[in-house]
Amino acid sequence: MKLLRFKHHNETKFGILEGNEVIILEENFLNSIKKGSTKISLNEVELLSPVLPSKFVCVGLNYMDHANEMKESLPSEPVLFLKPSTAVNHPEHPIFYPKQTKELHYEAELVVVIGKLAKDIKIEEAKDYILGYTCGNDVTARDLQRKDVQWTRSKSFDSFAPIGPWIETEIDPNSLNIKLILNDEIKQESNTSNLIFKPDFLVSFISSVMTLLPGDVIMTGTPSGVGAMKVGDKVSVVIENIGTLTNKVI
Amino acid sequence: MKLLRFKHHNETKFGILEGNEVIILEENFLNSIKKGSTKISLNEVELLSPVLPSKFVCVGLNYMDHANEMKESLPSEPVLFLKPSTAVNHPEHPIFYPKQTKELHYEAELVVVIGKLAKDIKIEEAKDYILGYTCGNDVTARDLQRKDVQWTRSKSFDSFAPIGPWIETEIDPNSLNIKLILNDEIKQESNTSNLIFKPDFLVSFISSVMTLLPGDVIMTGTPSGVGAMKVGDKVSVVIENIGTLTNKVI
Repeated sequence: MKLLRFKHHNETKFGILEGNEVIILEENFLNSIKKGSTKISLNEVELLSPVLPSKFVCVGLNYMDHANEMKESLPSEPVLFLKPSTAVNHPEHPIFYPKQTKELHYEAELVVVIGKLAKDIKIEEAKDYILGYTCGNDVTARDLQRKDVQWTRSKSFDSFAPIGPWIETEIDPNSLNIKLILNDEIKQESNTSNLIFKPDFLVSFISSVMTLLPGDVIMTGTPSGVGAMKVGDKVSVVIENIGTLTNKVI
Repeated sequence: MKLLRFKHHNETKFGILEGNEVIILEENFLNSIKKGSTKISLNEVELLSPVLPSKFVCVGLNYMDHANEMKESLPSEPVLFLKPSTAVNHPEHPIFYPKQTKELHYEAELVVVIGKLAKDIKIEEAKDYILGYTCGNDVTARDLQRKDVQWTRSKSFDSFAPIGPWIETEIDPNSLNIKLILNDEIKQESNTSNLIFKPDFLVSFISSVMTLLPGDVIMTGTPSGVGAMKVGDKVSVVIENIGTLTNKVI
């Protein structure tokens, strides 16, 4: 099932995508999934981030190849950082190139969407707390990341957390091809089987630190091949069986 | 003016403290400050964190003496990190000692409370966006902070962000004595005049990165003297002309 959030006639609505048709839901799918009687075409809607996370919990260096390219040693536990709720961005909405950076990077990531409040969850129970998976771009000002050592500023600018286009609820997250395409050129290409720490483990690990709320997301880390975007670039994260998240840099 | 949020007869309310009396407000002071006709005694209320921040934006190494004790060089720009909204804690409520750490530290901090949405604010305009100031304890699992290098996990456990007891709206934040008292012993003692980056500058700097929302807070950093707490300890942050924020470690 593909769950989406969108604008239609200037109202925010929730739906299920079936083929090219959107079945409008009676309320936010985080509350319940009740189909209404209205169907519209996907072409008629403006997609929004499928959730509005209270926090983006992000995992650094979770693909071996990316840790190597960043010249970082492999972590024995996940390295966490946060992006604030205000960084949220939507499919086809612009990523704003801040004046403070000269080195704006893309990072294609598999995103775990939390479906219900999760605290101290065991690995075996994690699936019950995951609503589904979507695509994300962990946009990063690489020069500021190096300068600050702490990663927060470089990853927290408004518009630096595009997620979408929708949440796929019925896939195995552990063997999905993931790609980043910049202006029709493939820049990152890997498979989530290469993740050092898997989604179920991450839900357990993170929820042993902080309560995860419905709609919160875990950005699971990026494979090798990170690189720069410039104004005018079109950047897409493509994950097998989920879909494509595209943004333009302005 | 001292603004507070509290529980009274199991309802959450907002008020102004005058002496030992609380004048109940008609709505959240973030919307408007309209006094109602009811006054109650401060003794009758259970204080809550004065705001529920969507994010805690925190500044590392902002007192020269603390940067020295952490053996870190002085930053040329503020070093930012985030605590999640789920870390919020209240006056007199417990700080939970997580099993993942053997080294739980206090950090007394002056906290800036944002009163209205702030984006790209000039230093000279910053005061218009600040509602007031309160006390905060940036509770930190020091061993995890060292291990992770990124500071997020060590500072993001539920209950690790006590703020309060109320917001003082009419003080100059730049010359306030600040103390941390652990079980009646003074452990940190400084003055906000020693802050490297001042509140107005921080509002400008942070709002050039991320939008600050009403009720968001900036934790401005801690002076030297950080140290360990153990289960059973009583920890108080005392800031001149604001008040005392006390919590117990359990």
